[in-house]
Parts: sequence; C-alpha cells; structure tokens
Amino acid sequence: MHGPDASNLLERLDALTQAALLQGFHQRQLVEGELLGSPNGERDSVFIVRSGRIRVFLAFEDKEYTLTFLEAGGIYSTHSQAYVQAVRPSEVLMGDTAQTMATLRSLPSAVPAIIRVLGATLDNCMRIIEDLAFRDVEGRLARFLDGMLARKGRPHQGSLRLELDLNTEDIAQLLGTTRQTVSSLLNRMAREGILSRAGNGVFDIHDAERLRARSQ
Amino acid sequence: MHGPDASNLLERLDALTQAALLQGFHQRQLVEGELLGSPNGERDSVFIVRSGRIRVFLAFEDKEYTLTFLEAGGIYSTHSQAYVQAVRPSEVLMGDTAQTMATLRSLPSAVPAIIRVLGATLDNCMRIIEDLAFRDVEGRLARFLDGMLARKGRPHQGSLRLELDLNTEDIAQLLGTTRQTVSSLLNRMAREGILSRAGNGVFDIHDAERLRARSQ
Repeated sequence: MHGPDASNLLERLDALTQAALLQGFHQRQLVEGELLGSPNGERDSVFIVRSGRIRVFLAFEDKEYTLTFLEAGGIYSTHSQAYVQAVRPSEVLMGDTAQTMATLRSLPSAVPAIIRVLGATLDNCMRIIEDLAFRDVEGRLARFLDGMLARKGRPHQGSLRLELDLNTEDIAQLLGTTRQTVSSLLNRMAREGILSRAGNGVFDIHDAERLRARSQ
Repeated sequence: MHGPDASNLLERLDALTQAALLQGFHQRQLVEGELLGSPNGERDSVFIVRSGRIRVFLAFEDKEYTLTFLEAGGIYSTHSQAYVQAVRPSEVLMGDTAQTMATLRSLPSAVPAIIRVLGATLDNCMRIIEDLAFRDVEGRLARFLDGMLARKGRPHQGSLRLELDLNTEDIAQLLGTTRQTVSSLLNRMAREGILSRAGNGVFDIHDAERLRARSQ
C-alpha cells in the first residue's frame, strides 16, 4: 500500500518468537539521509525498523519513484532493486539474510507472519502496477488520498480531516510525478470543492464520494 | 521477471518435502480460457502448475496488463488483485491457503524455497514498476528482449536466435501497450538492423549491444 506500511512484523510475533528470530541481529542507528541499501549492493541483509522512517525507492537517471515508507515494525531487504534510505534519524535491527533463513527453519512459529508480510509487500507492488498501468496522475492522486482517508481520516467540522506526515514532494514521488503536478491537481480539487488544504500535509476532504469516483 | 517464470518451486524441494507440502492438495484440469482466480474472488487457494500455461494479469476497463506467465512449477494465489487464467489446457494442484500455512509450520524444510519464490515474484513486480515508471514503450520492449536473450538466446548463423512462445499480442500485454505499437517498434528495430523476425515469436538478434543500450 502507498504510504506508511501497515505490515508490522513485530506486532504479529509473540515475544519469545521475536527474541528467537532476532538472535544475531544487531542494532544500527541511521542519520537522516543515510543509505541502508542500493541496487546491486554487496551486503544481503534483512532489517526491521524500530523507530524513525525509511524510504524505499527506485531511481533512474534523475527520476525517483517511492515504493513505500517503512515505520516501526516494517521489514525489508537491503538487497533488492530499490534504494533504502532513512528520511529521518532511525533505528533498525539488521541481520544476515542467509542466517535469518536458517533461523526460520528452526522457528516455524514465525513463518506465517513472515509470509503474510511478504504477501502484503507484494499486494502493495501490485497496486502500484495497477496505478501506473491504468491510471493517469489525477486518478493515482485521488486513489492515494481515498486510501489514506480510509485509514487515517477523522471527522472534523462536518468534513474528514486527513493528516499526512508527507509533503507535496513526498506525495509526488509516491505517485511518480512532479511536485508541481501534485500542487496543481490539489489546487484543482480545491477549486472543485472536493477538498481544502488546512496546512502542510493536512487536508479536509469535503466530498469523499467525488474523490472516490475520481480514483476509479 | 517478464515472461515464463524462472521460479520453479517443485524443483527447489526434495521429494519427501514436496509430498508433505502437497498433502491435501487436489488436482484440477483447466480448459483453455478457464479463469482460476479473479480480484475479490471468494476462494483463497494457492496453486502450483503441473503443466500448461497460466496467465496472471491485471485488468481495468478494456485494458489488460500481464504480470507473468506461469509454467510447470510456478506457484501463485487465487486471492490477489490479479486475474488468473489458463491460456492453454493446463493442470494445477490446488490447496487451501490457510491449510497450507498450517502445513508450513510443521514443515520447516519447505520454508526457504517458499520465501525465495515469493521473493522472486516480488523482484518481478519491482522490475515491472521500474519499467512503467521510468521507461517508454520502446525501452520496455528492448529490456524485455534483452532479458529473454540472456535466458533463452542461442547462437544461430552468427546471430542470436530467440524463440519465444509468445505472439505480438502477448508481448503487448506484458508491456502494457497495443499489438500495433509492438509491431511498429519491432519493424523499426528490424530496419535499424538490430534484429529480424524469423517467424511467429522467433527473432534473430543481430546487434545485442545496441538492443541492450536501448533498454537502459
């Protein structure tokens, strides 16, 4: 799914299983901007986010495309086609992938959770492919806001308030477009009465039906 | 990866593990065109292809986008955002997803193979996202042919022959474009001396360097 990932591995595991799985993992502090993994990186590690925020993105020439933001409990690999970068000071637990696979062989209780988290990551990727293959940028933006609304919207003065911890640039990179395009689309939706901007990353959605219709 | 999937689960498992994993699976024959799964389908099953060919694709209004073709050993779920359809008479082994998860808890030897196959599927999805986000259609076509060449090309009269079991329509749906566009791009590459068409789905690649350069 776009935005902060809902798949929290640690929440899915009981304390004993967690401890057994994380044996051999080491803690690492990341400063803002620090790169944890890149395509063809040498180290093949898995990591679990303890705190902070990590961006997973693809890059090609001067373009970037964000696959997801990971927060506490999120799990990923340093060894994919993606760049992995701390966008604020973060703490992760890192383990060797081969070693973790070996641990899993003797830790069957962790397996369903791991497979579900991988499945959720796959679902996220398939949604992105749908967006890119079938929707124009406005459709992607509407779908993104509609999805976030379902998860994070709360009633506020007769509308639904959506507080995203993302700026216009972040949203542009999630949608594979420019900041300027996102701004002008948001301005258009504001003119049409679908939403209004109540601050940086804060939106009041006045017409959720029309927002959803635009995301189809 | 585009095209026939390289992740053959059955080959990765020894005979005993295979037998234990497939306990409770039942065999199903599919006729050409038969739909095995669709978005929001009720049944949540996993299946393994024994023979034939299964197409996994996304659809939106009148557009379709092929994620992969599965052949013998390929594994997938009926319960994703994708349609799953036999494109020729096929035989699959089907099992209930929840039941299979339970089996895996007592079958740790199968876990690394399953996770690797899921990882390969995820890699495939990330390649597709890269293609859609960053490449124009010609770049996608060149990358597709270059990738197939690495896996299936064989020397033939001073060139490399590539026999794809795919027609122009199949390739168009893999790349998210029309048959007409693929045809005209192939014709252009032929005029430029990069390749020639030696039959339906059969290409002779005369300049693999230039093909690769075009895929960057």
